[in-house]
Amino acid sequence: MLNVGIVGASGYTGVELARILAGHPEVRLTAATSRQYAGKPLAEVFPNLRKRVDIVCENLSVDELIERADFFFCAVPHKTAMNIVPHLLDAGKKVVDLSADYRIHDAAVYEAWYQPHSSPQLLGEAAYGLPELYRETIRPARLTANPGCYPTSVILALTPLLRNGLIDPASLIIDSKSGTSGAGRAATVGSLFCEVTDGFRAYKVGGTHRHIPEIEQELSVAAGHPVTISFTPHLLPISRGILSTIYGSLTEAGEQTDLQALYERTYGDEPFIRVLPAGSFPATQHVRGSNCCDIGLQQDPRTKRIIVMCAIDNIVKGASGQAVQNMNLMNGFAETTGLMGAPFFP
Amino acid sequence: MLNVGIVGASGYTGVELARILAGHPEVRLTAATSRQYAGKPLAEVFPNLRKRVDIVCENLSVDELIERADFFFCAVPHKTAMNIVPHLLDAGKKVVDLSADYRIHDAAVYEAWYQPHSSPQLLGEAAYGLPELYRETIRPARLTANPGCYPTSVILALTPLLRNGLIDPASLIIDSKSGTSGAGRAATVGSLFCEVTDGFRAYKVGGTHRHIPEIEQELSVAAGHPVTISFTPHLLPISRGILSTIYGSLTEAGEQTDLQALYERTYGDEPFIRVLPAGSFPATQHVRGSNCCDIGLQQDPRTKRIIVMCAIDNIVKGASGQAVQNMNLMNGFAETTGLMGAPFFP
Amino acid sequence: MLNVGIVGASGYTGVELARILAGHPEVRLTAATSRQYAGKPLAEVFPNLRKRVDIVCENLSVDELIERADFFFCAVPHKTAMNIVPHLLDAGKKVVDLSADYRIHDAAVYEAWYQPHSSPQLLGEAAYGLPELYRETIRPARLTANPGCYPTSVILALTPLLRNGLIDPASLIIDSKSGTSGAGRAATVGSLFCEVTDGFRAYKVGGTHRHIPEIEQELSVAAGHPVTISFTPHLLPISRGILSTIYGSLTEAGEQTDLQALYERTYGDEPFIRVLPAGSFPATQHVRGSNCCDIGLQQDPRTKRIIVMCAIDNIVKGASGQAVQNMNLMNGFAETTGLMGAPFFP
Amino acid sequence: MLNVGIVGASGYTGVELARILAGHPEVRLTAATSRQYAGKPLAEVFPNLRKRVDIVCENLSVDELIERADFFFCAVPHKTAMNIVPHLLDAGKKVVDLSADYRIHDAAVYEAWYQPHSSPQLLGEAAYGLPELYRETIRPARLTANPGCYPTSVILALTPLLRNGLIDPASLIIDSKSGTSGAGRAATVGSLFCEVTDGFRAYKVGGTHRHIPEIEQELSVAAGHPVTISFTPHLLPISRGILSTIYGSLTEAGEQTDLQALYERTYGDEPFIRVLPAGSFPATQHVRGSNCCDIGLQQDPRTKRIIVMCAIDNIVKGASGQAVQNMNLMNGFAETTGLMGAPFFP
Repeated sequence: MLNVGIVGASGYTGVELARILAGHPEVRLTAATSRQYAGKPLAEVFPNLRKRVDIVCENLSVDELIERADFFFCAVPHKTAMNIVPHLLDAGKKVVDLSADYRIHDAAVYEAWYQPHSSPQLLGEAAYGLPELYRETIRPARLTANPGCYPTSVILALTPLLRNGLIDPASLIIDSKSGTSGAGRAATVGSLFCEVTDGFRAYKVGGTHRHIPEIEQELSVAAGHPVTISFTPHLLPISRGILSTIYGSLTEAGEQTDLQALYERTYGDEPFIRVLPAGSFPATQHVRGSNCCDIGLQQDPRTKRIIVMCAIDNIVKGASGQAVQNMNLMNGFAETTGLMGAPFFP
Repeated sequence: MLNVGIVGASGYTGVELARILAGHPEVRLTAATSRQYAGKPLAEVFPNLRKRVDIVCENLSVDELIERADFFFCAVPHKTAMNIVPHLLDAGKKVVDLSADYRIHDAAVYEAWYQPHSSPQLLGEAAYGLPELYRETIRPARLTANPGCYPTSVILALTPLLRNGLIDPASLIIDSKSGTSGAGRAATVGSLFCEVTDGFRAYKVGGTHRHIPEIEQELSVAAGHPVTISFTPHLLPISRGILSTIYGSLTEAGEQTDLQALYERTYGDEPFIRVLPAGSFPATQHVRGSNCCDIGLQQDPRTKRIIVMCAIDNIVKGASGQAVQNMNLMNGFAETTGLMGAPFFP
Repeated sequence: MLNVGIVGASGYTGVELARILAGHPEVRLTAATSRQYAGKPLAEVFPNLRKRVDIVCENLSVDELIERADFFFCAVPHKTAMNIVPHLLDAGKKVVDLSADYRIHDAAVYEAWYQPHSSPQLLGEAAYGLPELYRETIRPARLTANPGCYPTSVILALTPLLRNGLIDPASLIIDSKSGTSGAGRAATVGSLFCEVTDGFRAYKVGGTHRHIPEIEQELSVAAGHPVTISFTPHLLPISRGILSTIYGSLTEAGEQTDLQALYERTYGDEPFIRVLPAGSFPATQHVRGSNCCDIGLQQDPRTKRIIVMCAIDNIVKGASGQAVQNMNLMNGFAETTGLMGAPFFP
Repeated sequence: MLNVGIVGASGYTGVELARILAGHPEVRLTAATSRQYAGKPLAEVFPNLRKRVDIVCENLSVDELIERADFFFCAVPHKTAMNIVPHLLDAGKKVVDLSADYRIHDAAVYEAWYQPHSSPQLLGEAAYGLPELYRETIRPARLTANPGCYPTSVILALTPLLRNGLIDPASLIIDSKSGTSGAGRAATVGSLFCEVTDGFRAYKVGGTHRHIPEIEQELSVAAGHPVTISFTPHLLPISRGILSTIYGSLTEAGEQTDLQALYERTYGDEPFIRVLPAGSFPATQHVRGSNCCDIGLQQDPRTKRIIVMCAIDNIVKGASGQAVQNMNLMNGFAETTGLMGAPFFP
């Protein structure tokens, strides 16, 4: 049994980690930190966990944390994470960090989009935690940077095309829509039920969302040269789910390739990626509550563009589920352990 | 491995059965019938099941069914069920029937609320599938009648009070609210998104809902004499979930009893029933996707009434999850097998 | 043209007042106060008002307010209201107060449920602003206490029965459900989209909601003697709408009366009350965005109880619309001015 | 008073026409046809209309229709419309047709996307009913083709850029999202509450939606040469509202233009178009229930693209409200009559 701690347990990724770990046969949750709820059982903060999760929230120092567990999920905001993670590593622990702090390899890029980095030396070491692409670098890693939710949906959708030079990277337009859980559990007017329900809107329009450098980093790897994208996030009146609709112009090679077959070949053996049959398109309600990632594609013969769509549950494959998938790899467990539950519908 | 068949797989209880069974280590789904979708993989009808459920829908005769599995979930409408179940039993199979056909012990009562019964001889034999109350009669049963969703929420909530004479049965008023999945997957104007969303209404007002005789039957058992109730169902703009708010006048004994302690004692060891601490009340979003049943209670000193509230997921504890719980009992599996997943929130 | 001011314009009742007044031909909005948004156009706080409402939010003293308008809607919380209203009246202004501060006639009752009252001398003077019952006392009033949202739905539903002795007041059980706008625009975790959507729960269970004394005051007037009720509010995952489901035992007289005819006779000429035909029941989605109040009733022959249901839009008939109806009466305008818009559906 | 008839009153555009006309001071609704609900008051089919709309649904022949009114809204599906409209015109009536039948000027294009046209001679005559662009041709028209919902949102958003050569038409990518009322009131599984709620998906992907030729026709007019677009519609879990997010590459002229000022200048005097200030973006919840069209724009300096967003209520500005706006123009009423209600929020 691996003793596991969640640093920052009282957000939506925290409760989802606790829920998934409660059904994981190889681990035991032995620490859950929350400044706000210290002393309260986590199942009192999130009553869905009653009779399933026993842990009590604590406000623990890093030294106390180190005593409590051997593996950590760091689910605190960026900037906070970078002040905790190095200490955990120094104490010989392994970490999956769910913040943005170790996702960007280039410190200058990180600092241009976020703020100064206090442990840039780890940027080169951290594995980028997208198992379908980086399984072999994640396995031996002591630090894995769990990808952002939007990046997960975009990178998995585009990699087969970019790697094979089938799409013009300069033409990429990514129109993404996310459920409101992506905004976290902070009490703000903009996230109130009455402001979100029965509505829809874009935000961070015009190339300003902080997931852009992360997406571009990975698409550039796939393309073999720097890629710049248009990316517009939108807020859906649903709790969970991201759908990214991605447009690009096919290259000549792209037009001559059976793209449906390419995707099926690329992802056919992946337990969590489901390439939909031609003519079917992903829906967030069909991945809800699961670690699945559904991809569908369609060419538009009138414009010679391809549209690739990708749906994930932003708190599972886009956060806590993928984090557990990375934990499994880093500890030699079967990669799918605790994660094979089918999405629930309706 | 037990070979299991689902008769009527293309409704919402069918897809939920398939989802739960996909994670059940002791069974194999070997038949799924659907007239409408015969020849189609079930995962094409319900894309959430892709890469998790392989079965293809078929239009099978009872004779063909018998060849296919040893245990059956009958998830077809009442009246249809009674024409299939006896044949399965005759062939030596065990059955959990999710329809109303075998829930009412008294054929005359059944026929007054439904229609003539073609196999009334089985009414006395069928176990009423509420494991928390009838565990020992379910274990050896070859036929278990899976309770209705509303009845599950009401009977579990009221039994501790009625059994102990703490509440006046004549005073019972039950105001229940259900998610729209309870209406099934039939294409009707009343179930359209635009008719239901952002709205709320009652239906079957005035003592006409067919779950009434089932509720009264079981409350009468608990009370030891016939009970008549007021019951009003409402339609919530959510997919899953029932909340029943139940009002009753305490007897003198009731006023002198620590009711919170009574509930905690009664249900403390039950894996699926969670008695909330005093001052906390159930919410459908905290049982979503799980087999949990959350109960909270509060006395109103101004009126000497007690209010008992009960929340379940109507397709899990109110249907498919409870059906699997019954299957577990009837086959000697651990009762909780495949059902211990925590509710997901948000 | 009447110059009108809104004190506390930045909540949901404030924006709704501004919306309704924008279509009212007899008034001009000349003041809108908001401490938080002082200096901002109200249409920037609530973009739905763009090109329809010009007013800029200001942080005005009472003396400044007096200069600005002749009629005021006071839409600030209770306790704050009682410190503003007397000054407006002293300056010769007329006021509709949307808080609870002047709804309760008996200062001792008010203080038992709220806190000490600083202007109890006005309690006897304030008209209770339910026009269908108190039209003639509202017309000449300089201060009208706008009813609570739940009380509006309950009092209009029960008055015909209580006035005529057709129901046993001691038997009254009121199960109410409200949309989330009733919780206001304060940024709290409990009102976040992810906490409310796809869910349902009760709150203030056991006779503790502050609308109880208001409801009991008015039901006691109708019954001619003190009435004590059971009242349980619930939170619906919708923005707007209240449905109250009310249960009571009929008296002998009640059983012998044609209750449907009684309601149709009582409310037939009311422009905003719609008694539904027998067998039809109200739905919040059919009153949305309007000042309508839909009432339906059904006897339950099995229990000799009657169920009365009432649906309103909690921010219109339950707050801002009713406030404008009262303003119309207090200023000699036609009572329906600005309020006859049909509910929108879907 | 103008006598007005609605042909096809029992769909969502029909009930919305009846709602708007009930508040229109210059018209009287004298006919409402519905085969399915003949003999039923429209307010029984749509209870929101009770006490506001008196008309009874009838199954009327064209000859009977002609006797009933002088102006008609034709709200039946395409193909059905073309068999009714010519007869109404022949009888000297004026018509706003809400179907697609007279929107496309070129019969060959119509027939390629729909089916054979039985009255192609009217295609040249029908005004395209987008008042902000075609006010002067609508005024004298006897037949106006009411635009599609998606086209309304796209054409108004792009015309200022295309007319002035500021954007490369070949680069246009239109990602649109619509509420479910756009699918109409037909009882289909795909429109059920449980299939739509808490979900999101694309449909008609790859250049196959029938609004494409209509959009291209009008964008080509604005550009002065043929335009081909990428267009992907999505289904939102809301009743009302469309948001179109539109991407295009700026021309050199476009990069040197103050685009925000251009939009404000172009639409500043329009009563229904609201150009949002720089940095603000439209939201469907801010146009709900109104005839407003909100437009926001943002340049992306990293990609030299512009993103234009447009929000409308698909049943108002996208259908019934715009139809009334056209009726006003065709009959010499003030263009805004009956349509100036502010959107309601929340």
